[in-house]
Amino acid sequence: MLLVSLLLCRVAVSAQTLAERLGYPPGTKLIIVHADDLGEIHAVNAAAMKALQGGTINSASLMVPCPWFPEMADYAKSHPDADFGLHLTLTSERVYYRWSPVASSHKVPSLLDENGYFHHDWEHNTHVNPKEVEVELRAQIERALAMGVRPTHLDSHQYRLIMNGKELFEVMLRVAHAYKLPVFVTRDWFADYSYLQASLRSDDIVLDHTVTIEPEVPPEKWAEFYLAALKNLKPGVTEFVIHPGYDDEELRAATRERSTWGSAWRQRDFDFFTSDQFREVLAQQHIQLITWRELVRAAAASK
Amino acid sequence: MLLVSLLLCRVAVSAQTLAERLGYPPGTKLIIVHADDLGEIHAVNAAAMKALQGGTINSASLMVPCPWFPEMADYAKSHPDADFGLHLTLTSERVYYRWSPVASSHKVPSLLDENGYFHHDWEHNTHVNPKEVEVELRAQIERALAMGVRPTHLDSHQYRLIMNGKELFEVMLRVAHAYKLPVFVTRDWFADYSYLQASLRSDDIVLDHTVTIEPEVPPEKWAEFYLAALKNLKPGVTEFVIHPGYDDEELRAATRERSTWGSAWRQRDFDFFTSDQFREVLAQQHIQLITWRELVRAAAASK
Repeated sequence: MLLVSLLLCRVAVSAQTLAERLGYPPGTKLIIVHADDLGEIHAVNAAAMKALQGGTINSASLMVPCPWFPEMADYAKSHPDADFGLHLTLTSERVYYRWSPVASSHKVPSLLDENGYFHHDWEHNTHVNPKEVEVELRAQIERALAMGVRPTHLDSHQYRLIMNGKELFEVMLRVAHAYKLPVFVTRDWFADYSYLQASLRSDDIVLDHTVTIEPEVPPEKWAEFYLAALKNLKPGVTEFVIHPGYDDEELRAATRERSTWGSAWRQRDFDFFTSDQFREVLAQQHIQLITWRELVRAAAASK
Repeated sequence: MLLVSLLLCRVAVSAQTLAERLGYPPGTKLIIVHADDLGEIHAVNAAAMKALQGGTINSASLMVPCPWFPEMADYAKSHPDADFGLHLTLTSERVYYRWSPVASSHKVPSLLDENGYFHHDWEHNTHVNPKEVEVELRAQIERALAMGVRPTHLDSHQYRLIMNGKELFEVMLRVAHAYKLPVFVTRDWFADYSYLQASLRSDDIVLDHTVTIEPEVPPEKWAEFYLAALKNLKPGVTEFVIHPGYDDEELRAATRERSTWGSAWRQRDFDFFTSDQFREVLAQQHIQLITWRELVRAAAASK
């Protein structure tokens, strides 16, 4: 069972699990502590850069269409070992602060609202054209490459490309294969989204689990939620999807229309994942950090 | 001479000056205190909204392509009497924080750098196509109108459309005439840019003078510079072009590659133009505030 739960590949391409190939014994608990939304807002970039320096947040993904992306591209160039993916973005979900596609807008009309921004949300009557999604994803990756970012993985802002049907997931997967990049997918999602498993190739990396905090957790229970998740962690590779940021004037203004994934929320994530308490529980529970770069190397070595 | 200096129209369309039509006696000193760059950065929006509320900054212009424009569009809708023009923008002059055209990029290739942002600067080898400029200016105005802004005037970010030749100025003027909006032009510029005077129509509003602070002024002389300008003010209508902002983490990060028109600069402008000292010198010197909206009404009434 332990061997099975450590499997990172849907279909094992060798008798060893990925964790074993990395040199870990069966039963090892590995986590990626992954900061989302870099590039969106300076207060998010600044918090992430600080936390990455501390080392307990060890991976992140960048929103290429957002105005502060150049700051992260510059950082990525001067920190070539940083574990940065691209946070593929198809929505502009805030109200007072907005962004638009990277692709020429005439090529992606179904992704635009009436003012030329990405849709604020995808409603029942929003018909997103998968061909246009592919054009936009490729444009985001090409801009990142042109600006010196060498991404380690791809994931999807607001899980739009994961949870909106087989067709959009297959677009993401096709683009990922074209650029030889892994996509953040976890077996936790297979029950609810069966097309994920059906679409993946045998050589695609699949994480075992993911943990992310939800609006149901009250602010005073923040640390308690994460501590419980860490104490109950299952063997294998788990990605903690977190949203650190500094609760300052910029972030408060940019997110003020709702508190979910808002400014105070992001400060709480920053505080927990840069705390001594977090370091201590990692040591107590024998939990080890791992990056996307290490997973990819292990997968390549096993071929 | 006083009458002549008060003329706001290049060719008088009636014997009265615009100041007289507004009800002011000859010799009256009128100023527009105009904040530039709203929409670019939240710290600029926040400072401008605070200063507009105080009343000593009484006009401003908005950068439609910038990510914080929706915040100002929202403010404009709830403050329909605010004197807001559009700060027509064709450059993205910062390094870590960038923006792109409103028009579909395939329509305006000459305005784009290699990554799809507006050019950081216009170099000797940057060939900006005037037809594409017109497409982009119209797209900026159309987005502003669609988002509920009713602009009172047009001006040009970094004076690109004023100081880069007759052809670009005539594009701006043609668009302004199409939308029945005045353009910020002052007789101070006629000596250096003779095509301005040659291109203007007899019914175009032309301000008498402009004052703006330059990098040569050291920080400790900021108030001294403005006080001298106010004490030596000539009769007629003068626009003070200022750049208020809050010197906070966001503004420092966005402008950190150079100090000119940077974060501390903008805080100094905010501080002076919201100070009691500024109010007092206005009263002492019998200087009166006027808006673009009032100028347009007076011009319309005189026809």
